[in-house]
Parts: sequence; C-alpha cells; structure tokens
Amino acid sequence: MTISVLTIFPELFDGIRKAPIIRRLQEAGTLTLQLVDIKDFAGGSFRHIDDSPYGGGAGMILRFPPLLAALEHAKGMTPEIPAHTVILTPAGHPFRQADAHRLGQEEHLILICGHYEGMDARINEYAQEQISIGDYVLSGGEVPAMVLIDSITRLAEGALRKESTEDESFENGLLEYPQYTRPAVYDGKAVPEVLLSGNHEAIRRWREEQSRELTQKNRPDLWKS
Amino acid sequence: MTISVLTIFPELFDGIRKAPIIRRLQEAGTLTLQLVDIKDFAGGSFRHIDDSPYGGGAGMILRFPPLLAALEHAKGMTPEIPAHTVILTPAGHPFRQADAHRLGQEEHLILICGHYEGMDARINEYAQEQISIGDYVLSGGEVPAMVLIDSITRLAEGALRKESTEDESFENGLLEYPQYTRPAVYDGKAVPEVLLSGNHEAIRRWREEQSRELTQKNRPDLWKS
Repeated sequence: MTISVLTIFPELFDGIRKAPIIRRLQEAGTLTLQLVDIKDFAGGSFRHIDDSPYGGGAGMILRFPPLLAALEHAKGMTPEIPAHTVILTPAGHPFRQADAHRLGQEEHLILICGHYEGMDARINEYAQEQISIGDYVLSGGEVPAMVLIDSITRLAEGALRKESTEDESFENGLLEYPQYTRPAVYDGKAVPEVLLSGNHEAIRRWREEQSRELTQKNRPDLWKS
Repeated sequence: MTISVLTIFPELFDGIRKAPIIRRLQEAGTLTLQLVDIKDFAGGSFRHIDDSPYGGGAGMILRFPPLLAALEHAKGMTPEIPAHTVILTPAGHPFRQADAHRLGQEEHLILICGHYEGMDARINEYAQEQISIGDYVLSGGEVPAMVLIDSITRLAEGALRKESTEDESFENGLLEYPQYTRPAVYDGKAVPEVLLSGNHEAIRRWREEQSRELTQKNRPDLWKS
C-alpha cells in the first residue's frame, strides 16, 4: 500500500515516520509512506501558497493551483493504480473504525491536509471523500492524517496477529474492559480479585459486565444504538 | 501553560514540536511542552515496561509502577501548581471543542498516552479524566495527545487574533462554508459568482446557506441537535 500525504508542513510527520509499526511495514515492503510538500508546487506564475478569501473574511486560504499540481504529482507516482483521495477537513464525514478497515483496502491512498483558515474548495471536486476525525478544530489536516495513517497501518500489521484486535473498543460495539498486570498490589491499589482466581468463566463474565458498565457510563450514545 | 506528555515513544512528537504555533508560543514563553519517557521510570525492581494481563488475553499491558513514577515526576515539575491529568484512551469521554477551551485554562496539563494493548487501569484513579478523540482504534495515545495539543495551542494563539476563530466549524454549531481564493477560474473550475460581486449582504446570505446545506448533508446529527 502507498500512502501519499500532501501538506505544507512535511516536517510535522517526522515523528509518526518513526512509529514502530510504520517502520516495520516499510521494511517489510508492504507500505510506502511519501510526503508531498505543497510548497514545492507553488512556483511558476503562482508564487504564493495562500491568499485572502474571495468575498472577504479573516485568514488565508490555500490556493487551488499548487494543491492541484501536488495532487497530480502524487497520482503520477502510481500511474498504473487509481488513487483514492481523501481531504482531511472538519466539514467532512466522521471517521469511524469501519472507515479504517475500508481505506486499508486501497492500494494508493492520498491524504490532503488543509491548513491556515482553509483551502480553496475547488480541490474537493478531485477527491473521493472528505473526512473529519472529530468535532474540534485543529490548525490543519496534519494530525488528522496521522490518525488515519495510525489506524490503517495498525490493522495492516494486525492482520499478521489476528487475535489482538478482536476485543478492542469499537470492534464489537462496546468499550474495552479494564486491564491489569503485575504487581497485584502497588501504592495501596489492588487488582480485582476475580482476575487472580483462575476461573475463566468468572473472568469472562466480569469483563463483559465491566465493558457494559463503562459503555453505559462514558458512552450512552453507543449503548443506545 | 505547561503541557507534560507521558509516553513510551517520545520520538513520535518530533514532528508536532516543529509546528509553527507551538514554536511561537514556546518562544513567547507562554508554553512549555515537555516529554516524559515512561521507559525512564521502569528501572529498579520493575525492569519491564509491559507485562501480560491478569486473567489472560492477548497483548501486553503497560505496567502500573512506571506509569505512576512518571506521573509523579511530571507533577513534581510544577510543585506549586496542581496539575490536571488526562488519560488518552478509546474508552474515555468524547473530546469536543468545548473541552479544548476548558483544558486550555489549565496551568499544567499532563497527558498520559497508553500503548500496546492497554495500560494497567489503576492509573485511572490518579487522573481527572479520560478522553477519547473518536470512535476508532489507534496504536497508542500519542496521536490523540497531539490532537489535544494542537487544538489547545491554536486557541491560545487565537486569543491574539480573535476574529479568525469565530466562523470556524463547531464554534457556532455549523460546518464552515466553502472558501475560495485567486484565480477566479482554473482547470475549468470557477469560483461562485456571488463571491466576486462585492455585495456583502448577498455574500453573507450565501455563506450562511452553504453552511446549513453542508451541515445537513455531512452532519445530520449536528443539524438536528
């Protein structure tokens, strides 16, 4: 799988590129992560990366020509494979775990990160979808792109060791039960006794009950649905 | 404001540390961003950072003693200021723009990033809240911590130039209207004529209508509420 990220701040990805999962997938040859700097496409007759909005208003808007040129460059990197292009924007549809599974099937995924106060909306016509990672405002699409990269690549790696993804939050409609490990008592805090009992059926029931209680408490919206 | 991040992968933050807003706030002396490597607190009689879960199951759990020691270390960095501790976990309450405003008021914010398949739940008793950034599974709390850092720091900087945050998505319950900038026509795509009209009232009405239509289409859940 190839993931291309269009951004005006490629250096923001210096951290995520060092993530163990991403390094392992790249070394295994199953992932190519490439950063395309939109600034590199702002030359020629269009010297500025951003400009003030038509119709007035605060802030600067990323210009259409460099966005389009960067997108065409990214598409050209896998000429034989049609790319699936996603724009990260708070106005997009909400990202869900099912989207991670779905987008993980793409051979070439292009992620466009907006920045400043927005980007010229004409670029939307060249993308398959717009995605929002949540109801909050960020300085740009870079951290949202990292969310998609993280969620998709861990599923790719998870395919190698299936069992560890099945009990997780959102995979079965409930939040995950609390987990504990050694020591059994520390700083006056003890692990729930049932987990030390060796009674597998009691442990299974306790975990199920904890998942239900936690979901009702923290996510009544998931519980009702 | 001080933001301390507890993580076993501090290098994942090498990118976000270079974000222009964060650099400017640090240079202005209004933000201190410090990374605490949980691995540094796994010494002594507790040599491992993770261990298998009590009660059985797949995956490895971050151990309680190094988590607690790292948290105490972070708290000790501002002994005169009580810290507000947040755990990033998919089981937390959903992060919203109002949380960014609220957490931005804290003088010392500690963010604990879980990893592997989870962390020993006893650490929850030492935190004020647990936050989830969305209904998807990530490899750890690092990218979610970046979401909080980005959303909070841009509000801190926004305080300096108020007008640019008021029209944004989620600030007024609607998604933001589309924006455009020069040139007026490119690759056969034209900017909506009203924006070139100079008629401020018509532009205001068009933008309001676009916000409503976009919200109804992409976020019927926001529209109903």
